[in-house]
Amino acid sequence: MTDEQQIRTLIENWVAAVHAGDLDTVLADHSPDIVMFDVPPPYDGVRGLAAYTETWPGFFKWQQSGASFELESLDVTAGSDVAFAFALLHCRTTDGDPRVLLRLTIGLRKLADRWTVTHEHHSFPHDDASNGS
Amino acid sequence: MTDEQQIRTLIENWVAAVHAGDLDTVLADHSPDIVMFDVPPPYDGVRGLAAYTETWPGFFKWQQSGASFELESLDVTAGSDVAFAFALLHCRTTDGDPRVLLRLTIGLRKLADRWTVTHEHHSFPHDDASNGS
Repeated sequence: MTDEQQIRTLIENWVAAVHAGDLDTVLADHSPDIVMFDVPPPYDGVRGLAAYTETWPGFFKWQQSGASFELESLDVTAGSDVAFAFALLHCRTTDGDPRVLLRLTIGLRKLADRWTVTHEHHSFPHDDASNGS
Repeated sequence: MTDEQQIRTLIENWVAAVHAGDLDTVLADHSPDIVMFDVPPPYDGVRGLAAYTETWPGFFKWQQSGASFELESLDVTAGSDVAFAFALLHCRTTDGDPRVLLRLTIGLRKLADRWTVTHEHHSFPHDDASNGS
């Protein structure tokens, strides 16, 4: 597989594992030093694999209540040892949750010949943004 | 300069230009194909340099009203031809705007021996996120 294909497979497997509540697979390709900008606070990011791990049980419970976590689109830019990807995902409950598309950006490094996630940025837009940006 | 230093300088200059309302410098290192996930909608991103350009005048106006746009931290991961960076910025008015830290992730490619921004992801957390993530 090309580097792009390896990364695409890594992210597709991670998305499926998030929806299934499979914590081992969610963590399998993540760095001890990961920095995640998550949908909720803290403002300065979730830092380190232990803190990253703690964010998932509550989200898994919400997924199991009937929510979706499905890739709508995925764009991968891969170099030989650094890569990034951005994606849109359906992330909603079945009862008309208006947050239709989650935006996701992932940063990766190839370490010991294996692509490893060192950064994730998850967000929804702010419909009420009033600063004109 | 190393690739990391080149990217750090690019981002520092871009941040200063955003605050100063210097549109030419804001656009100088950006790809025609840029995809930006901005703080406001659209959910599926701002696509292409023309659309990216249109987002700035309103933001410049807000900056000129007395708002800040200053790097708090910047982390760069640079390969030989692909790189990404993530940053926290003070982005607020002086009247106690509670949105203290903007989260920013940038994806870059080296094209014609020059680092070029192909992706930006700007967000604030959602304090009311109720899905447990």
